[in-house]
Amino acid sequence: MQFSPLLAQLIEALRCLPGVGPKTAQRMAFQLLERQREKGKHLAATLHQAMQEINHCKNCRTFSESEYCHFCSSPQRDRSLLCIVESPADIIAVEQMGSYRGLYFVLMGHLSPIDGIGPEELGLKELALLLSGGTIKETILATNPTMEGEATAHYISELVKNHPIKVTRIAHGVPLGSELEYIDSGTLAHAFAGREQL
Amino acid sequence: MQFSPLLAQLIEALRCLPGVGPKTAQRMAFQLLERQREKGKHLAATLHQAMQEINHCKNCRTFSESEYCHFCSSPQRDRSLLCIVESPADIIAVEQMGSYRGLYFVLMGHLSPIDGIGPEELGLKELALLLSGGTIKETILATNPTMEGEATAHYISELVKNHPIKVTRIAHGVPLGSELEYIDSGTLAHAFAGREQL
Repeated sequence: MQFSPLLAQLIEALRCLPGVGPKTAQRMAFQLLERQREKGKHLAATLHQAMQEINHCKNCRTFSESEYCHFCSSPQRDRSLLCIVESPADIIAVEQMGSYRGLYFVLMGHLSPIDGIGPEELGLKELALLLSGGTIKETILATNPTMEGEATAHYISELVKNHPIKVTRIAHGVPLGSELEYIDSGTLAHAFAGREQL
Repeated sequence: MQFSPLLAQLIEALRCLPGVGPKTAQRMAFQLLERQREKGKHLAATLHQAMQEINHCKNCRTFSESEYCHFCSSPQRDRSLLCIVESPADIIAVEQMGSYRGLYFVLMGHLSPIDGIGPEELGLKELALLLSGGTIKETILATNPTMEGEATAHYISELVKNHPIKVTRIAHGVPLGSELEYIDSGTLAHAFAGREQL
């Protein structure tokens, strides 16, 4: 290694970021050192604080530095609706839609026995507790339309059926603006099966 | 913004890294929070220390946390040879060659009047001081074979000619293992002009 020990250490440490290999890490270190010392210091401080303070909301499991996230602590959200998603990023997608006003529950993943991710890891115990609270009238399963997402949705739907709560799954079909010619047959089959009378 | 304030701040701070846009920053933040808290803390600490402590070697201008880098302070390097490169990464390339035992001088860029990078920014004053020290017998110009690199090499060669020091430029030609068919004509012209008798 031809770099100074601390620089080599910085390059190695940057490699913990996803998608960052040795060359990218080197470029990042150089750029920070050459032109962005202040931003680099700011990143170090923010990263330290975030790693220490950000935890999971006690209610919905999304990332939050306060005990309850701002959705769960907002008096303006409809507490009778619960949307179950795989990741905090999915909340953003649902919020951008602009029409959902209920609460969320974040699984932080999907069932994946190979990776050792079972019901426990997805917080389904906490979910069961929420469901038996009595305020929820409907749960909307908004896991990804992938094999694992579907399996997870199915598993959770069975769980919800133990309670007097309506359980729905977001619709599968052709996305707006797409062309039928290029839609895969699985999606098209779903779109046909789920056709609605006009 | 649907993220908690600290999480939003972390995502924003990560964007100071080169090549990191909003989606990548989000993925980095999530991955660190979900699976790599310890590595994240370590990165924060290393980054902070590096931004504080890494400076430029007083002799050759490469990154170093000590006053003089390990090349400049090594008694085993040949002080009569000075290789001038654009960036610390270029030192690695030259060192990997395994046969160069002289010292380096790092410009930390190339002449680029548009970006306001002139002789001052490249440390050519410091270079002139080094050259007049009397120990250097040859300077090897190893700036990149680009337009800017060539211009920089030319400028520095004029500077060196004020001293009784040999000045050389690394050879341009066809790289080993390449195929003539795919070599650009500029490179091929250099290879023909620089042909050697066998």
